[in-house]
This record gives sequence, structure tokens and C-alpha cells, in this order.
Amino acid sequence: MKFQPPKGTRDYLTEDMILRENILNTLKNIFEKYGFEPLDTPAFETFELLAIKSGEGVIEQIFQFKDKAGRDLGLRFDLTVPLARVVASNPQLSKPYKRYAIGPAWRYEEPQSGRMRQFYQADIDICGSSSMEADVECIVCTIDCFKSLGFKKFAVRINNRKILDGILELIGMEKEKNLETFRIIDKMDKIGEDGVRKELEKREFTEKQIEKLLELILKKGDFLERLNEGKRILKGIKIAEEGIKELEDIYKLSKYYGISEFIALDFSLARGLDYYTGPIFELVEETKKLIGTLAAGGRYDNLIELFGGRPTPATGISLGIERIFQLMKERKISGSKTKVKVFIANVGDESKEEVVKIAQMLRNKGISCQIDLMNRNLTKQLEYADNAGIPFALVVGEREIKKKKFKLKDMKKKSEKELSLEEIARELSRN
Amino acid sequence: MKFQPPKGTRDYLTEDMILRENILNTLKNIFEKYGFEPLDTPAFETFELLAIKSGEGVIEQIFQFKDKAGRDLGLRFDLTVPLARVVASNPQLSKPYKRYAIGPAWRYEEPQSGRMRQFYQADIDICGSSSMEADVECIVCTIDCFKSLGFKKFAVRINNRKILDGILELIGMEKEKNLETFRIIDKMDKIGEDGVRKELEKREFTEKQIEKLLELILKKGDFLERLNEGKRILKGIKIAEEGIKELEDIYKLSKYYGISEFIALDFSLARGLDYYTGPIFELVEETKKLIGTLAAGGRYDNLIELFGGRPTPATGISLGIERIFQLMKERKISGSKTKVKVFIANVGDESKEEVVKIAQMLRNKGISCQIDLMNRNLTKQLEYADNAGIPFALVVGEREIKKKKFKLKDMKKKSEKELSLEEIARELSRN
Repeated sequence: MKFQPPKGTRDYLTEDMILRENILNTLKNIFEKYGFEPLDTPAFETFELLAIKSGEGVIEQIFQFKDKAGRDLGLRFDLTVPLARVVASNPQLSKPYKRYAIGPAWRYEEPQSGRMRQFYQADIDICGSSSMEADVECIVCTIDCFKSLGFKKFAVRINNRKILDGILELIGMEKEKNLETFRIIDKMDKIGEDGVRKELEKREFTEKQIEKLLELILKKGDFLERLNEGKRILKGIKIAEEGIKELEDIYKLSKYYGISEFIALDFSLARGLDYYTGPIFELVEETKKLIGTLAAGGRYDNLIELFGGRPTPATGISLGIERIFQLMKERKISGSKTKVKVFIANVGDESKEEVVKIAQMLRNKGISCQIDLMNRNLTKQLEYADNAGIPFALVVGEREIKKKKFKLKDMKKKSEKELSLEEIARELSRN
Repeated sequence: MKFQPPKGTRDYLTEDMILRENILNTLKNIFEKYGFEPLDTPAFETFELLAIKSGEGVIEQIFQFKDKAGRDLGLRFDLTVPLARVVASNPQLSKPYKRYAIGPAWRYEEPQSGRMRQFYQADIDICGSSSMEADVECIVCTIDCFKSLGFKKFAVRINNRKILDGILELIGMEKEKNLETFRIIDKMDKIGEDGVRKELEKREFTEKQIEKLLELILKKGDFLERLNEGKRILKGIKIAEEGIKELEDIYKLSKYYGISEFIALDFSLARGLDYYTGPIFELVEETKKLIGTLAAGGRYDNLIELFGGRPTPATGISLGIERIFQLMKERKISGSKTKVKVFIANVGDESKEEVVKIAQMLRNKGISCQIDLMNRNLTKQLEYADNAGIPFALVVGEREIKKKKFKLKDMKKKSEKELSLEEIARELSRN
């Protein structure tokens, strides 16, 4: 055991891969139903691009390197930056451009439960539409994903950066400190109300300002009630009124889609990334807070222009595959050890040719099979199949070949049937 | 257009992604039918691991970097090295361990047609079996892949490093120069017979030795004829006799599998990588040489031990996705511009709620659809759908909602039918 995967990364062997692929295929199918199209971009980008709008803390986490010609490159830290580059440099794309991307990203962080240095994300984004219909479509699609994955108790917390801007304006905090303040508020789940209060005090806000802010953002209640209350309090503050209007649209659309029960208004939601400009959202499990957010996103209307493209409003959500995987693994939602359906055992060398023919016949019908490649006797072959978790085994000896009937063993039930090849193929396709 | 993907990399937008995914899904399904199980490993490995057996020329091509703790890392340059590490460090894996992996690898090379700095490979390998049955299973599975992808004229060239060793022994070349000599012979397709002769002369072989070598490896002919001739000439040279026996086994098994028409014996096949120890193979298109090899592999019985594992014989093949993709794209074997089946157009704002409901109904039935997110009028919506290549459009206005009959437009045929929602769902599922 001389070599291991580098720190913060891991291998996914068969059993884990089966669960991962179930997750990714489920997401992919749902993304496509909603009309998102696939996109793949390189693992690394120019460092200059990555550095533009990564926000404090992220830029230090980039795996940075030079290629042999001295170009400054970095492994991508999310899938949004490459998307914004693609949209900026492909003005011919018809709008809205709805894309999904599933793939790894890399951040140099301290590895912990559900957080790796190489981690997969699955992103959906809609570029070119400023309508709240786009935001809601992303939210609905995400809810559909988590339902299909078997998640039961979850909620999508929603807020709007414009409302937060308005609140800070209302209580007279300097606008230049908004991003910094958002990042502090974003830590609420981790450091609690007192922690947030202490960090805000360091930023030289008055005690009165801080109390007012916490009072405004921490109130709980029904979506519409909270929204109307916010509307009353923030009346006359233009940016906030825009934000309120957007959330009203989102609420109305959520009724159309029948997802209003899943959404919760939360004025304390801030999100850490710099580039959000409007609605922001995150999906959390209600039963288990520790694992953190499972999906998050928001509107970023300025990013594509910043990357040299035409002004293009955009919104999207990113699903964190490592956390989803970890939760599903803990709950043992998957379970198969192998993708192989049947092991075709030979009795002696003489039946090898027939074994090959049967294997090829079954494979042509789409049935996954294995044959012996280790020159093992029958007992050892069946032992191997059992250990590998292969659900069926077929025994092929000279007697069976003559009779044209073969024993199909159900390895779990410990039962067997004598069947013709045709019957076997049918039986295996069914199971 | 300020930012582009880094040199030697590219983006895959919708149309290209649809073709790529067709290719990868086809391979994945076939790999699984043959009982290969999925494996995923990190994009980067410790540089020390990558450097062990990369062979001359490859080590300089590694994208190398340090993480923030000063660890020397490198992006993987193939999928075999990570596999060998996994097998070495997971002795609990039952043997044979048959895995497939599909993913990117990176080499700093001069980009050219079909060669990128980030390129996808699809690998199948069998670890733990020293039987030629394992090699043949890899070959048969690969042939199945290319047939399924629609390739018609291709051949698998086969040789054995042991036979090449024997030939060099026969003509008295020093054993220490074998690897170097293999690398020169490997360039036959690129630099021709004369080029090979010149390079061998530089290595201080005698003219007689060089002529003899070229005579022995360049003869063409029937698989068995050539093999028997080789057997006669190399009689008494132990290593060569082993190699001949292995190819006899491969030939016999190829008859069992019905693939003997696809394989060709070619003593001039050498492969450039250091780690091969037995049979080597490559799949080439017979009609077009320029694009080069489409798949290649061989037996590497020492690599896993070299990485700190137990002695584990292994064999495998790697399919070059970029070249396959390029050929299929040139031949326009794919063709769809979108994965979306239907665009559901609204006539005015009033029908928006109904549009959402129809979209969700169709999505629940697995049909991919888009609705308007741009507040466009009906004409503009249908224009968009047509430009995007969406094959069907559905028009939803107040009249249609009342009648419960909707116009389903076939955008290609420029025809339309008035149908109930149920009929529409059935029609779209069929098409």
C-alpha cells in the first residue's frame, strides 16, 4: 500500500460507483425533461478568468499551476464561471440558453465529512432571461430531483439580495460594506446569532444598527405574511421594492407549479458568493442540519458581461453531489455490489467454447455476464460469483450441453431451475 | 470575447455533447454487458506515482503542480496508472477485478487533429488473470464497441512483446536496448521503413542486424501462416516460444468468439509504453490511416507490483474518445441539435398557468419540454423553437384551453394536428 489518492480526494469503487451513477443518471434525466442541454468544459481555465469574481476566500483555494509555456492556469472551483465564459464567448447561442453540467470541481479546503478537495457538482442554469419564471424553473427542477432521489423532508429557503440591500439601506449601513455583511450573515448556521453579532461589531456598525438588522432578518413566519411585512417596512426603498416584487412573482409561479409547500422565505439567507444580484436560494434538509446545504444558487445578472459578453441576465442552481451521495450512502438507499447479472460457469475445459457462445448470446440481449478467466474448478467459480454478489449463476457441462438444459442458480435464494437457453435469457431479462 | 478555453482544450456545446454522450453511453452499456464494473479516481495523482513507469516522452508531458502544502501532484496522463494504484492499494478486491473507466486525461502535447491536451479515454482492464482469455475478452468487447458505433472497416493488429524480445535475441541485439528499439519500431507508421532504419543505425546496430530485423517484422500474411513461420524461425528461444504460445491461444479463442476475421498478426507492432509484458494490440481503421490508432492496449503483468501491490497479472485496452468523436462527427453519424422534444407556446399571459401545468404533465411522462421564459409573443416563440431545432411545438391559447384540444405542430414537416392532451402525450412518447 505504497500509494494512496492525494489528500482530499478518493476513489469510487464498484459499490460506491453504482450509487453515484444512480444519482447522476436521475439528475441528468430530470434536467433533460426540463429542457436543459448538456455542456462540458475543460477541467482548468486561465487563472485570470477564475480570479475575476471568485470572492474572498475562494481565490486562495484554487489549485493553481503553469503550463510548459508559462500560462497561468487553475483547476475550476465551480461550474458557473466556465458557463459564464462559454456564454460570453459564444454570442450565437440562442436565448434563453439552458444548460446543465455534471462534473468535478476543485478547492483546496480542509477535507471533512461531505467536503472533498475534488467534488462533483450538477448545475442547471438559464442564461438570457430576466423573468422570475427562469428562477422558478430552476427551483422546480431541483425539487423534482430531490423527490426522485427519495429525499422527503426538505425546504428551499429563498431570499433576494435586493431586499438585503434595502434592509442595509434602511438601517443606514454603508453600501460599500454590503458584500462583507452578506458574508457574515451567511455564517448564521455555523456561528449562530451571537457569532454574527460579534463579527458585525468588529465592522464598526452601531449596536442599534446590529439589533435592528437581526430583528429584521431573523423573524420567522408564513411566506406571504413575511413578504407583506417586509413590503410595509421597506416601502419607498427602490431596490427593496424591486426585490419584493420579484419574490411576489416567485410565489405566484410556485402556486402554478404546485411547489409552494416546499419554499420558505428567509430574510437571513445571504449566500457567500460575490456575484449574486437578485433572488438567492438554497435547499436544506429539515431533519439534519449538520450536513449543510444540499443545493444552492441564485441570480447573477452581471457575471457574463463582466467576462466580456453582452449583458445577459442569468440564474441557476448547483447541486452538491458529495453531500447527496454521503446522505444516501448512510441511509443505504442503494445496495448492489455489482452490475453483473449472471456468472456462466464451465465444468472442465471442454465446455469453454459453449460457455463463450452462451455469454455472447446473453450479452447480445443486453444481459451483463461474466465467465471464468482464472482456470478455476466449478466450486471455486461459484464461490467467486457468490462473493462478488452476482445474483445468478449458470452451470455449463457436457451433460447440460447434450440435454440443452442448464441449471440456473439463484444465488440469494439458494434455489435452482433447469431451463433451456431461451428460457434463461427470458428469466434474466425479467429479473 | 475576452476569454477562451486554454490552449489544447475546448468546450463541447449541445450538438457535440449529444454525439459524445451517444458514444460514451454505447461504450458504457457494452462494457457492462461484458461484466466490467465502473471505477472513478481523482483527476490528479502524486507526481511520484505518475513518474514511475510513464516512459520516455510522457513524463515531460505531465501537467505538474504543487498543492498549498507543497505536495507534488500531476494531472493523470492515462487511466491505467490510477487503476494500477487502486488495485495495489485494495488487496481485498476479488480477482479477476474487471473495471471500466471513462474520463479525461491530460498531456502537454502540440494540439493537432484528434489530439487535445485534455482528452477523454474509455478503458477496460482485467486484473488478476494471466489467461489469454482475459486479453481476448478485452479485444472482443472492443470490437463490439466499434461495431455498435457504426464503424465498418477496422482491424485489430496483434503482436507480443515476448516475440519481439525473441527476435532481438535471435539477431543478437543487446537486451538493454529492447525498450528503446520498441519505441523506434513503434514509429513505423509515422516515419516509414527508411526512417526506422535510420534511427536504428544511430543506435549502433549493424546493417546486417537491421536488415534481418526489418525482414522478420515486416512480412505480411495470414495470421496462422505468419505465426507458424515465426514459430519455426524462433524455435529454441524460450521467451519467443512463450509469446508464440500466447498468440496461438488468442487465435483459438478468437474462433470461439467468432472474431478471427477482425484480427491480424503484425510483428512490426511494438507500442511505445514501457509497461507492456506480453500481447499488445491496437485497433485501426483500414480505410483511413491519418487519424491513427482508435484503441490500443496490451498486457502489463508487472505494473501493479511495481506500485506496491501483490504480483497481479493484468491486461486492458484504452479507447481514444477524441478520435472516435472526430471521425463520427466528420461522417455526421449524429445530427440532433437539441434534446428537447417539444416547445409549449403560450398565447398571451392568460394561458401561462395552463402552459406550466401541461409542461409538468409531459415532464412527468419523461418528455423533455421548454416553455417561454422571455415574454415573447407567439410568432417569436415558434421562431425560437424552430431555430433551436425543437421538433414539435404545442400552442396553448384560451380557445384551445376551452376546447381541450391543442395544435401540435411538427416543425420539420410544417404540418399540424389538433389533439387532446392525452393524445399529445402519446404522440410525443412515440416519436
